[in-house]
Amino acid sequence: MKENGIEPGRVIRRTRDGALEYKRDELTVEEPLEIRIGDKTVATTMRTPGRDEELAAGFLFSEAIIRSDNAIQKFSRPTTARNRENIISVHLRSGAKLKLTSTQRFGTISSSCGLCGKESIDAIRQNFSPIKTKSFRIKIETLLSLPGKLRENQSEFARTGGIHAAGVFTADGEALIVREDIGRHNAVDKAIGRAFLGRKVPLDRHLLLVSGRASFEIIQKALAAGIPIVASVSAPSTLAMQFARESNQTLIGFLRPPSFNVYSHVERVILD
Amino acid sequence: MKENGIEPGRVIRRTRDGALEYKRDELTVEEPLEIRIGDKTVATTMRTPGRDEELAAGFLFSEAIIRSDNAIQKFSRPTTARNRENIISVHLRSGAKLKLTSTQRFGTISSSCGLCGKESIDAIRQNFSPIKTKSFRIKIETLLSLPGKLRENQSEFARTGGIHAAGVFTADGEALIVREDIGRHNAVDKAIGRAFLGRKVPLDRHLLLVSGRASFEIIQKALAAGIPIVASVSAPSTLAMQFARESNQTLIGFLRPPSFNVYSHVERVILD
Repeated sequence: MKENGIEPGRVIRRTRDGALEYKRDELTVEEPLEIRIGDKTVATTMRTPGRDEELAAGFLFSEAIIRSDNAIQKFSRPTTARNRENIISVHLRSGAKLKLTSTQRFGTISSSCGLCGKESIDAIRQNFSPIKTKSFRIKIETLLSLPGKLRENQSEFARTGGIHAAGVFTADGEALIVREDIGRHNAVDKAIGRAFLGRKVPLDRHLLLVSGRASFEIIQKALAAGIPIVASVSAPSTLAMQFARESNQTLIGFLRPPSFNVYSHVERVILD
Repeated sequence: MKENGIEPGRVIRRTRDGALEYKRDELTVEEPLEIRIGDKTVATTMRTPGRDEELAAGFLFSEAIIRSDNAIQKFSRPTTARNRENIISVHLRSGAKLKLTSTQRFGTISSSCGLCGKESIDAIRQNFSPIKTKSFRIKIETLLSLPGKLRENQSEFARTGGIHAAGVFTADGEALIVREDIGRHNAVDKAIGRAFLGRKVPLDRHLLLVSGRASFEIIQKALAAGIPIVASVSAPSTLAMQFARESNQTLIGFLRPPSFNVYSHVERVILD
Protein backbone atom coordinates (compact mmCIF):
# COMPACT_ATOMS: atom_id res chain seq x y z
CA MET A 1 0.00 0.00 0.00
CA LYS A 2 1.50 3.31 -1.05
CA GLU A 3 1.20 6.39 1.07
CA ASN A 4 -1.64 7.77 -1.03
CA GLY A 5 -3.63 4.62 -0.40
CA ILE A 6 -3.64 3.38 -3.97
CA GLU A 7 -1.06 1.22 -5.72
CA PRO A 8 0.76 2.67 -8.73
CA GLY A 9 -1.14 1.97 -11.94
CA ARG A 10 -4.35 1.25 -10.04
CA VAL A 11 -7.55 3.14 -9.37
CA ILE A 12 -10.35 2.45 -6.92
CA ARG A 13 -13.67 2.21 -8.70
CA ARG A 14 -17.07 2.49 -7.08
CA THR A 15 -19.35 0.52 -9.35
CA ARG A 16 -23.03 1.06 -10.10
CA ASP A 17 -24.05 -1.40 -7.40
CA GLY A 18 -21.98 0.37 -4.78
CA ALA A 19 -19.16 -2.16 -4.67
CA LEU A 20 -15.57 -1.03 -4.50
CA GLU A 21 -12.92 -2.60 -6.67
CA TYR A 22 -9.38 -2.05 -7.82
CA LYS A 23 -8.95 -1.46 -11.53
CA ARG A 24 -6.06 -0.68 -13.82
CA ASP A 25 -5.93 3.05 -14.43
CA GLU A 26 -6.17 3.81 -18.11
CA LEU A 27 -5.61 7.49 -18.34
CA THR A 28 -4.65 9.72 -21.17
CA VAL A 29 -1.02 10.67 -20.96
CA GLU A 30 -0.39 14.37 -20.48
CA GLU A 31 3.18 15.60 -20.76
CA PRO A 32 4.64 18.95 -21.70
CA LEU A 33 6.19 19.52 -25.11
CA GLU A 34 8.58 22.38 -25.65
CA ILE A 35 8.60 23.47 -29.29
CA ARG A 36 11.78 25.13 -30.46
CA ILE A 37 12.84 26.76 -33.68
CA GLY A 38 16.49 25.90 -33.76
CA ASP A 39 17.51 26.39 -30.16
CA LYS A 40 14.92 29.08 -29.32
CA THR A 41 11.84 28.06 -27.34
CA VAL A 42 8.67 29.14 -29.14
CA ALA A 43 6.00 27.44 -27.08
CA THR A 44 5.31 24.88 -24.38
CA THR A 45 2.12 22.85 -24.60
CA MET A 46 0.62 20.10 -22.44
CA ARG A 47 0.06 17.32 -24.94
CA THR A 48 -0.40 13.59 -25.34
CA PRO A 49 2.97 12.30 -26.54
CA GLY A 50 3.19 11.01 -30.10
CA ARG A 51 3.21 12.73 -33.47
CA ASP A 52 5.17 15.61 -32.01
CA GLU A 53 6.49 16.58 -35.46
CA GLU A 54 2.92 17.03 -36.66
CA LEU A 55 2.00 19.00 -33.56
CA ALA A 56 4.98 21.31 -33.92
CA ALA A 57 4.42 21.82 -37.65
CA GLY A 58 0.68 22.32 -37.22
CA PHE A 59 1.18 24.81 -34.44
CA LEU A 60 3.74 26.87 -36.35
CA PHE A 61 1.61 26.82 -39.49
CA SER A 62 -1.78 27.50 -37.90
CA GLU A 63 -0.33 30.33 -35.83
CA ALA A 64 1.09 31.83 -39.03
CA ILE A 65 4.65 31.60 -37.75
CA ILE A 66 5.56 29.68 -40.89
CA ARG A 67 3.42 29.67 -44.04
CA SER A 68 5.23 27.64 -46.70
CA ASP A 69 5.09 23.85 -46.61
CA ASN A 70 8.65 24.01 -47.84
CA ALA A 71 9.86 25.89 -44.76
CA ILE A 72 10.74 22.94 -42.56
CA GLN A 73 13.99 21.12 -43.26
CA LYS A 74 13.96 18.64 -40.40
CA PHE A 75 13.11 17.99 -36.77
CA SER A 76 15.48 16.99 -34.02
CA ARG A 77 15.57 16.13 -30.34
CA PRO A 78 18.22 17.53 -28.05
CA THR A 79 20.94 14.99 -27.42
CA THR A 80 21.67 15.94 -23.85
CA ALA A 81 18.55 17.35 -22.18
CA ARG A 82 17.07 15.41 -19.31
CA ASN A 83 13.54 15.45 -20.77
CA ARG A 84 14.59 15.08 -24.38
CA GLU A 85 11.39 13.30 -25.40
CA ASN A 86 9.48 16.41 -24.31
CA ILE A 87 11.47 18.81 -26.48
CA ILE A 88 11.34 19.09 -30.26
CA SER A 89 13.39 21.40 -32.41
CA VAL A 90 12.15 22.51 -35.81
CA HIS A 91 14.91 23.38 -38.24
CA LEU A 92 13.96 25.70 -41.07
CA ARG A 93 15.50 25.77 -44.52
CA SER A 94 17.84 28.68 -45.06
CA GLY A 95 15.81 31.54 -46.45
CA ALA A 96 12.50 30.20 -45.08
CA LYS A 97 10.19 33.00 -43.99
CA LEU A 98 9.52 33.17 -40.27
CA LYS A 99 6.98 35.53 -38.74
CA LEU A 100 7.83 35.38 -35.10
CA THR A 101 6.91 38.42 -33.08
CA SER A 102 8.77 39.07 -29.88
CA THR A 103 5.62 38.00 -28.05
CA GLN A 104 5.40 34.72 -29.88
CA ARG A 105 9.05 34.08 -29.28
CA PHE A 106 8.68 34.38 -25.54
CA GLY A 107 5.13 33.24 -25.08
CA THR A 108 4.01 29.73 -24.33
CA ILE A 109 0.90 27.73 -25.02
CA SER A 110 -1.09 25.12 -23.17
CA SER A 111 -3.03 22.12 -24.35
CA SER A 112 -6.19 24.02 -25.17
CA CYS A 113 -4.51 27.21 -26.03
CA GLY A 114 -4.15 28.61 -29.48
CA LEU A 115 -3.88 32.20 -28.44
CA CYS A 116 -0.95 32.17 -26.15
CA GLY A 117 2.06 34.06 -27.21
CA LYS A 118 -0.07 36.96 -28.32
CA GLU A 119 0.35 39.82 -25.98
CA SER A 120 -2.67 41.92 -26.54
CA ILE A 121 -6.30 41.66 -27.46
CA ASP A 122 -5.62 43.58 -30.64
CA ALA A 123 -3.36 40.77 -31.79
CA ILE A 124 -6.02 38.10 -31.39
CA ARG A 125 -7.77 38.46 -34.70
CA GLN A 126 -5.09 37.24 -37.02
CA ASN A 127 -5.07 38.27 -40.61
CA PHE A 128 -5.76 35.22 -42.65
CA SER A 129 -7.73 35.75 -45.85
CA PRO A 130 -11.36 34.60 -45.80
CA ILE A 131 -12.15 31.29 -47.49
CA LYS A 132 -12.63 31.66 -51.24
CA THR A 133 -13.95 28.21 -52.16
CA LYS A 134 -17.55 28.33 -53.29
CA SER A 135 -18.03 24.93 -54.83
CA PHE A 136 -17.27 22.73 -51.83
CA ARG A 137 -20.52 21.47 -50.35
CA ILE A 138 -21.61 18.56 -48.19
CA LYS A 139 -24.72 16.38 -48.03
CA ILE A 140 -26.67 16.04 -44.79
CA GLU A 141 -26.33 12.27 -44.79
CA THR A 142 -22.56 12.58 -45.15
CA LEU A 143 -22.44 15.12 -42.34
CA LEU A 144 -24.45 12.83 -40.07
CA SER A 145 -22.04 9.95 -40.74
CA LEU A 146 -18.96 11.84 -39.56
CA PRO A 147 -19.16 11.56 -35.74
CA GLY A 148 -19.34 7.78 -36.08
CA LYS A 149 -16.39 7.76 -38.45
CA LEU A 150 -14.38 9.96 -36.10
CA ARG A 151 -15.04 7.51 -33.25
CA GLU A 152 -14.12 4.51 -35.42
CA ASN A 153 -10.78 6.13 -36.11
CA GLN A 154 -10.08 6.95 -32.49
CA SER A 155 -7.95 4.69 -30.40
CA GLU A 156 -7.98 5.86 -26.83
CA PHE A 157 -11.17 7.87 -26.49
CA ALA A 158 -13.50 5.01 -25.74
CA ARG A 159 -11.10 3.67 -23.17
CA THR A 160 -10.49 6.80 -21.18
CA GLY A 161 -13.01 9.42 -22.20
CA GLY A 162 -10.21 11.86 -21.67
CA ILE A 163 -8.95 12.54 -25.13
CA HIS A 164 -10.09 14.87 -27.86
CA ALA A 165 -10.15 14.08 -31.56
CA ALA A 166 -9.95 16.13 -34.72
CA GLY A 167 -10.67 14.69 -38.14
CA VAL A 168 -10.20 15.99 -41.67
CA PHE A 169 -12.85 14.57 -44.01
CA THR A 170 -13.60 14.76 -47.72
CA ALA A 171 -16.99 15.74 -49.16
CA ASP A 172 -17.68 12.02 -49.52
CA GLY A 173 -17.15 11.54 -45.79
CA GLU A 174 -13.82 9.80 -46.15
CA ALA A 175 -11.47 10.32 -43.20
CA LEU A 176 -8.22 11.76 -44.56
CA ILE A 177 -6.62 12.33 -41.15
CA VAL A 178 -7.78 11.67 -37.58
CA ARG A 179 -5.65 12.76 -34.67
CA GLU A 180 -6.10 12.63 -30.90
CA ASP A 181 -4.72 14.62 -28.01
CA ILE A 182 -5.65 15.56 -24.47
CA GLY A 183 -5.94 19.11 -25.77
CA ARG A 184 -8.48 20.07 -28.40
CA HIS A 185 -6.14 22.54 -30.03
CA ASN A 186 -3.34 20.03 -30.13
CA ALA A 187 -5.55 17.47 -31.87
CA VAL A 188 -6.34 20.11 -34.50
CA ASP A 189 -2.68 21.10 -34.78
CA LYS A 190 -1.67 17.46 -35.27
CA ALA A 191 -4.31 16.95 -38.00
CA ILE A 192 -3.38 20.16 -39.79
CA GLY A 193 0.31 19.48 -39.23
CA ARG A 194 -0.04 16.07 -40.90
CA ALA A 195 -1.64 17.73 -43.94
CA PHE A 196 1.00 20.45 -43.93
CA LEU A 197 3.90 17.97 -43.82
CA GLY A 198 2.21 15.93 -46.57
CA ARG A 199 1.92 19.08 -48.75
CA LYS A 200 -1.85 18.80 -48.66
CA VAL A 201 -2.69 22.37 -47.56
CA PRO A 202 -4.79 24.29 -48.32
CA LEU A 203 -7.49 21.78 -47.35
CA ASP A 204 -10.06 23.70 -49.35
CA ARG A 205 -12.00 20.56 -50.32
CA HIS A 206 -12.25 19.31 -46.76
CA LEU A 207 -14.20 19.53 -43.54
CA LEU A 208 -12.76 19.60 -40.02
CA LEU A 209 -14.66 17.80 -37.26
CA VAL A 210 -13.71 18.27 -33.61
CA SER A 211 -14.97 16.14 -30.76
CA GLY A 212 -15.46 18.96 -28.27
CA ARG A 213 -16.53 22.55 -28.37
CA ALA A 214 -15.62 24.94 -31.15
CA SER A 215 -13.80 27.92 -29.76
CA PHE A 216 -12.57 30.86 -31.73
CA GLU A 217 -9.07 29.43 -31.97
CA ILE A 218 -10.29 26.20 -33.60
CA ILE A 219 -11.96 28.22 -36.35
CA GLN A 220 -8.85 30.34 -36.75
CA LYS A 221 -6.67 27.25 -37.11
CA ALA A 222 -9.07 25.82 -39.69
CA LEU A 223 -8.92 29.10 -41.61
CA ALA A 224 -5.11 28.96 -41.59
CA ALA A 225 -5.41 25.61 -43.36
CA GLY A 226 -8.05 26.93 -45.77
CA ILE A 227 -10.78 24.60 -44.45
CA PRO A 228 -14.24 25.81 -45.53
CA ILE A 229 -16.43 23.78 -43.13
CA VAL A 230 -15.87 23.24 -39.41
CA ALA A 231 -18.16 20.93 -37.44
CA SER A 232 -18.14 20.24 -33.74
CA VAL A 233 -19.95 17.70 -31.62
CA SER A 234 -20.61 20.30 -28.96
CA ALA A 235 -21.27 24.04 -28.77
CA PRO A 236 -19.44 26.83 -30.53
CA SER A 237 -18.80 30.13 -28.77
CA THR A 238 -20.13 33.50 -29.86
CA LEU A 239 -16.68 34.50 -31.06
CA ALA A 240 -16.31 31.28 -33.03
CA MET A 241 -19.59 32.00 -34.81
CA GLN A 242 -18.66 35.61 -35.46
CA PHE A 243 -15.25 34.62 -36.77
CA ALA A 244 -16.72 31.92 -39.05
CA ARG A 245 -19.29 34.32 -40.46
CA GLU A 246 -16.65 36.93 -41.24
CA SER A 247 -14.16 34.48 -42.70
CA ASN A 248 -16.66 32.76 -45.01
CA GLN A 249 -16.52 29.47 -43.10
CA THR A 250 -19.47 27.18 -42.52
CA LEU A 251 -19.79 26.42 -38.82
CA ILE A 252 -21.82 23.42 -37.67
CA GLY A 253 -22.38 22.70 -33.97
CA PHE A 254 -24.02 20.04 -31.81
CA LEU A 255 -23.48 17.49 -34.59
CA ARG A 256 -25.25 14.64 -32.86
CA PRO A 257 -27.09 12.57 -35.41
CA PRO A 258 -29.80 13.01 -36.46
CA SER A 259 -29.57 16.64 -35.28
CA PHE A 260 -27.18 19.52 -35.83
CA ASN A 261 -27.08 23.30 -35.93
CA VAL A 262 -25.68 25.53 -38.65
CA TYR A 263 -24.32 28.86 -37.46
CA SER A 264 -22.87 30.35 -40.63
CA HIS A 265 -22.70 29.98 -44.38
CA VAL A 266 -25.39 27.35 -44.66
CA GLU A 267 -24.98 27.45 -48.45
CA ARG A 268 -22.30 24.76 -48.16
CA VAL A 269 -24.76 22.30 -46.62
CA ILE A 270 -26.94 20.58 -49.23
CA LEU A 271 -30.18 20.80 -47.33
CA ASP A 272 -32.53 18.96 -49.69
CA MET B 1 -30.85 37.38 -45.60
CA LYS B 2 -27.27 38.05 -44.66
CA GLU B 3 -24.43 36.95 -46.88
CA ASN B 4 -23.65 33.92 -44.71
CA GLY B 5 -27.20 32.67 -45.23
CA ILE B 6 -28.28 33.03 -41.60
CA GLU B 7 -29.79 36.07 -39.89
CA PRO B 8 -27.88 37.57 -36.99
CA GLY B 9 -28.87 35.97 -33.70
CA ARG B 10 -30.33 32.94 -35.47
CA VAL B 11 -29.21 29.41 -36.08
CA ILE B 12 -30.56 26.77 -38.44
CA ARG B 13 -31.47 23.61 -36.56
CA ARG B 14 -31.96 20.19 -38.08
CA THR B 15 -34.32 18.45 -35.71
CA ARG B 16 -34.56 14.77 -34.87
CA ASP B 17 -37.28 14.22 -37.48
CA GLY B 18 -35.16 15.81 -40.20
CA ALA B 19 -37.07 19.11 -40.32
CA LEU B 20 -35.16 22.36 -40.60
CA GLU B 21 -36.06 25.35 -38.49
CA TYR B 22 -34.71 28.70 -37.44
CA LYS B 23 -33.93 29.08 -33.75
CA ARG B 24 -32.46 31.78 -31.60
CA ASP B 25 -28.79 31.11 -31.08
CA GLU B 26 -27.98 30.78 -27.42
CA LEU B 27 -24.27 30.54 -27.29
CA THR B 28 -21.79 31.05 -24.53
CA VAL B 29 -20.09 34.38 -24.90
CA GLU B 30 -16.35 34.16 -25.48
CA GLU B 31 -14.36 37.37 -25.35
CA PRO B 32 -10.74 38.08 -24.52
CA LEU B 33 -9.76 39.53 -21.16
CA GLU B 34 -6.44 41.24 -20.76
CA ILE B 35 -5.26 41.09 -17.16
CA ARG B 36 -2.89 43.86 -16.13
CA ILE B 37 -0.98 44.58 -12.98
CA GLY B 38 -1.01 48.35 -12.99
CA ASP B 39 -0.40 49.12 -16.65
CA LYS B 40 1.62 45.99 -17.47
CA THR B 41 -0.11 43.16 -19.33
CA VAL B 42 0.30 39.90 -17.44
CA ALA B 43 -2.03 37.61 -19.37
CA THR B 44 -4.74 37.46 -21.99
CA THR B 45 -7.42 34.80 -21.64
CA MET B 46 -10.49 33.91 -23.69
CA ARG B 47 -13.26 34.04 -21.12
CA THR B 48 -16.98 34.43 -20.63
CA PRO B 49 -17.46 38.04 -19.48
CA GLY B 50 -18.55 38.61 -15.91
CA ARG B 51 -16.79 38.34 -12.56
CA ASP B 52 -13.59 39.57 -14.16
CA GLU B 53 -12.25 40.72 -10.78
CA GLU B 54 -12.57 37.17 -9.48
CA LEU B 55 -10.95 35.78 -12.60
CA ALA B 56 -8.03 38.18 -12.37
CA ALA B 57 -7.55 37.63 -8.64
CA GLY B 58 -7.91 33.84 -8.97
CA PHE B 59 -5.45 33.71 -11.84
CA LEU B 60 -2.81 35.79 -10.04
CA PHE B 61 -3.25 33.80 -6.85
CA SER B 62 -3.39 30.31 -8.34
CA GLU B 63 -0.36 31.04 -10.52
CA ALA B 64 1.51 32.16 -7.40
CA ILE B 65 2.05 35.66 -8.78
CA ILE B 66 0.47 37.06 -5.62
CA ARG B 67 0.09 35.06 -2.43
CA SER B 68 -1.42 37.32 0.22
CA ASP B 69 -5.15 38.03 0.23
CA ASN B 70 -4.16 41.49 1.36
CA ALA B 71 -2.16 42.16 -1.80
CA ILE B 72 -4.90 43.63 -3.98
CA GLN B 73 -5.93 47.21 -3.32
CA LYS B 74 -8.45 47.66 -6.11
CA PHE B 75 -9.39 46.89 -9.68
CA SER B 76 -9.90 49.36 -12.50
CA ARG B 77 -10.84 49.54 -16.16
CA PRO B 78 -8.93 51.73 -18.56
CA THR B 79 -10.83 54.94 -19.23
CA THR B 80 -9.86 55.35 -22.84
CA ALA B 81 -9.23 51.96 -24.45
CA ARG B 82 -11.54 50.84 -27.22
CA ASN B 83 -12.25 47.45 -25.63
CA ARG B 84 -12.24 48.65 -22.06
CA GLU B 85 -14.64 45.97 -20.88
CA ASN B 86 -12.09 43.39 -22.00
CA ILE B 87 -9.25 44.85 -19.95
CA ILE B 88 -8.89 44.76 -16.19
CA SER B 89 -6.12 46.30 -14.13
CA VAL B 90 -5.20 44.93 -10.74
CA HIS B 91 -3.68 47.49 -8.40
CA LEU B 92 -1.54 46.11 -5.61
CA ARG B 93 -1.02 47.67 -2.21
CA SER B 94 2.34 49.31 -1.82
CA GLY B 95 4.72 46.74 -0.45
CA ALA B 96 2.64 43.79 -1.67
CA LYS B 97 4.82 40.88 -2.77
CA LEU B 98 4.72 40.10 -6.45
CA LYS B 99 6.40 37.07 -7.97
CA LEU B 100 6.35 37.86 -11.63
CA THR B 101 9.06 36.21 -13.66
CA SER B 102 10.04 37.77 -16.93
CA THR B 103 8.23 34.92 -18.64
CA GLN B 104 5.04 35.50 -16.74
CA ARG B 105 5.23 39.19 -17.41
CA PHE B 106 5.32 38.68 -21.14
CA GLY B 107 3.39 35.48 -21.49
CA THR B 108 -0.31 35.17 -22.13
CA ILE B 109 -2.92 32.58 -21.30
CA SER B 110 -5.96 31.18 -23.04
CA SER B 111 -9.26 29.92 -21.79
CA SER B 112 -8.04 26.46 -20.92
CA CYS B 113 -4.56 27.47 -20.17
CA GLY B 114 -3.02 27.61 -16.78
CA LEU B 115 0.51 27.02 -17.91
CA CYS B 116 1.06 29.87 -20.23
CA GLY B 117 3.61 32.38 -19.25
CA LYS B 118 5.93 29.63 -18.17
CA GLU B 119 8.75 29.35 -20.59
CA SER B 120 10.20 25.97 -20.00
CA ILE B 121 9.17 22.52 -18.98
CA ASP B 122 11.26 22.79 -15.86
CA ALA B 123 9.09 25.68 -14.72
CA ILE B 124 5.87 23.68 -14.94
CA ARG B 125 5.93 22.02 -11.57
CA GLN B 126 5.41 24.97 -9.32
CA ASN B 127 6.50 24.80 -5.76
CA PHE B 128 3.42 24.88 -3.63
CA SER B 129 3.61 22.91 -0.41
CA PRO B 130 1.69 19.63 -0.32
CA ILE B 131 -1.67 19.62 1.47
CA LYS B 132 -1.27 19.14 5.22
CA THR B 133 -4.92 18.66 6.25
CA LYS B 134 -5.54 15.14 7.49
CA SER B 135 -8.93 15.43 9.12
CA PHE B 136 -11.00 16.62 6.16
CA ARG B 137 -12.97 13.67 4.80
CA ILE B 138 -16.12 13.22 2.74
CA LYS B 139 -18.92 10.65 2.73
CA ILE B 140 -19.78 8.74 -0.44
CA GLU B 141 -23.38 9.90 -0.36
CA THR B 142 -22.26 13.52 -0.13
CA LEU B 143 -19.83 13.01 -2.99
CA LEU B 144 -22.57 11.49 -5.14
CA SER B 145 -24.84 14.49 -4.49
CA LEU B 146 -22.35 17.06 -5.80
CA PRO B 147 -22.77 16.84 -9.60
CA GLY B 148 -26.49 17.51 -9.18
CA LYS B 149 -25.80 20.45 -6.89
CA LEU B 150 -23.29 21.85 -9.35
CA ARG B 151 -25.88 21.69 -12.14
CA GLU B 152 -28.55 23.29 -9.93
CA ASN B 153 -26.24 26.22 -9.38
CA GLN B 154 -25.37 26.62 -13.03
CA SER B 155 -27.16 29.15 -15.15
CA GLU B 156 -26.13 28.76 -18.74
CA PHE B 157 -24.87 25.20 -19.01
CA ALA B 158 -28.17 23.53 -19.66
CA ARG B 159 -29.06 26.12 -22.23
CA THR B 160 -25.92 25.99 -24.32
CA GLY B 161 -23.90 22.99 -23.31
CA GLY B 162 -20.90 25.15 -23.95
CA ILE B 163 -19.88 26.32 -20.53
CA HIS B 164 -17.79 24.77 -17.81
CA ALA B 165 -18.48 24.97 -14.11
CA ALA B 166 -16.34 24.79 -11.00
CA GLY B 167 -17.81 24.49 -7.52
CA VAL B 168 -16.33 24.74 -4.05
CA PHE B 169 -18.21 22.53 -1.59
CA THR B 170 -18.08 21.84 2.12
CA ALA B 171 -17.83 18.35 3.63
CA ASP B 172 -21.60 18.51 4.10
CA GLY B 173 -22.09 19.04 0.39
CA GLU B 174 -23.02 22.69 0.67
CA ALA B 175 -22.08 24.78 -2.36
CA LEU B 176 -19.94 27.66 -1.13
CA ILE B 177 -19.12 29.03 -4.59
CA VAL B 178 -20.12 27.95 -8.10
CA ARG B 179 -18.69 29.71 -11.12
CA GLU B 180 -19.01 29.22 -14.86
CA ASP B 181 -16.87 30.04 -17.83
CA ILE B 182 -16.25 28.86 -21.36
CA GLY B 183 -12.81 27.83 -20.14
CA ARG B 184 -12.37 25.21 -17.45
CA HIS B 185 -9.39 26.98 -15.96
CA ASN B 186 -11.22 30.26 -15.88
CA ALA B 187 -14.16 28.71 -14.02
CA VAL B 188 -11.67 27.42 -11.43
CA ASP B 189 -9.89 30.78 -11.29
CA LYS B 190 -13.21 32.57 -10.73
CA ALA B 191 -14.20 30.21 -7.92
CA ILE B 192 -10.81 30.43 -6.23
CA GLY B 193 -10.69 34.16 -6.89
CA ARG B 194 -14.03 34.62 -5.13
CA ALA B 195 -12.69 32.77 -2.08
CA PHE B 196 -9.45 34.74 -2.23
CA LEU B 197 -11.23 38.11 -2.38
CA GLY B 198 -13.50 37.01 0.47
CA ARG B 199 -10.44 36.05 2.57
CA LYS B 200 -11.55 32.43 2.61
CA VAL B 201 -8.28 30.82 1.46
CA PRO B 202 -6.85 28.35 2.24
CA LEU B 203 -9.91 26.26 1.41
CA ASP B 204 -8.56 23.38 3.45
CA ARG B 205 -12.01 22.20 4.55
CA HIS B 206 -13.39 22.14 1.01
CA LEU B 207 -13.69 20.10 -2.14
CA LEU B 208 -13.40 21.41 -5.70
CA LEU B 209 -15.66 19.89 -8.35
CA VAL B 210 -15.09 20.62 -12.04
CA SER B 211 -17.53 19.79 -14.82
CA GLY B 212 -14.97 18.63 -17.36
CA ARG B 213 -11.70 16.80 -17.30
CA ALA B 214 -9.08 17.24 -14.61
CA SER B 215 -5.82 18.33 -16.12
CA PHE B 216 -2.62 18.92 -14.26
CA GLU B 217 -3.26 22.66 -14.09
CA ILE B 218 -6.62 22.21 -12.34
CA ILE B 219 -4.93 20.21 -9.59
CA GLN B 220 -2.16 22.78 -9.34
CA LYS B 221 -4.69 25.61 -8.97
CA ALA B 222 -6.54 23.65 -6.27
CA LEU B 223 -3.27 23.11 -4.45
CA ALA B 224 -2.56 26.84 -4.58
CA ALA B 225 -5.84 27.34 -2.73
CA GLY B 226 -5.06 24.54 -0.28
CA ILE B 227 -7.96 22.36 -1.47
CA PRO B 228 -7.50 18.73 -0.29
CA ILE B 229 -10.04 16.99 -2.58
CA VAL B 230 -10.56 17.56 -6.30
CA ALA B 231 -13.35 15.79 -8.14
CA SER B 232 -14.14 15.87 -11.83
CA VAL B 233 -17.07 14.62 -13.83
CA SER B 234 -14.76 13.33 -16.53
CA ALA B 235 -11.25 11.86 -16.78
CA PRO B 236 -8.08 13.09 -15.16
CA SER B 237 -4.78 12.94 -17.02
CA THR B 238 -1.76 10.94 -15.98
CA LEU B 239 0.02 14.10 -14.91
CA ALA B 240 -2.98 15.23 -12.86
CA MET B 241 -2.96 11.91 -11.01
CA GLN B 242 0.78 12.03 -10.48
CA PHE B 243 0.61 15.61 -9.23
CA ALA B 244 -2.28 14.83 -6.84
CA ARG B 245 -0.46 11.81 -5.43
CA GLU B 246 2.67 13.84 -4.78
CA SER B 247 0.88 16.85 -3.32
CA ASN B 248 -1.28 14.84 -0.92
CA GLN B 249 -4.52 15.66 -2.74
CA THR B 250 -7.40 13.26 -3.17
CA LEU B 251 -8.33 13.03 -6.85
CA ILE B 252 -11.73 11.68 -7.88
CA GLY B 253 -12.67 11.22 -11.53
CA PHE B 254 -15.68 10.13 -13.57
CA LEU B 255 -17.95 11.28 -10.75
CA ARG B 256 -21.17 10.14 -12.37
CA PRO B 257 -23.54 8.86 -9.72
CA PRO B 258 -23.66 6.15 -8.59
CA SER B 259 -20.10 5.56 -9.85
CA PHE B 260 -16.76 7.25 -9.45
CA ASN B 261 -13.04 6.53 -9.44
CA VAL B 262 -10.48 7.49 -6.81
CA TYR B 263 -6.97 8.05 -8.13
CA SER B 264 -5.11 9.22 -5.05
CA HIS B 265 -5.32 9.53 -1.29
CA VAL B 266 -8.46 7.49 -0.87
CA GLU B 267 -8.15 7.97 2.90
CA ARG B 268 -10.21 11.16 2.60
CA VAL B 269 -13.19 9.26 1.20
CA ILE B 270 -15.28 7.60 3.92
CA LEU B 271 -15.83 4.34 2.12
CA ASP B 272 -18.07 2.52 4.55
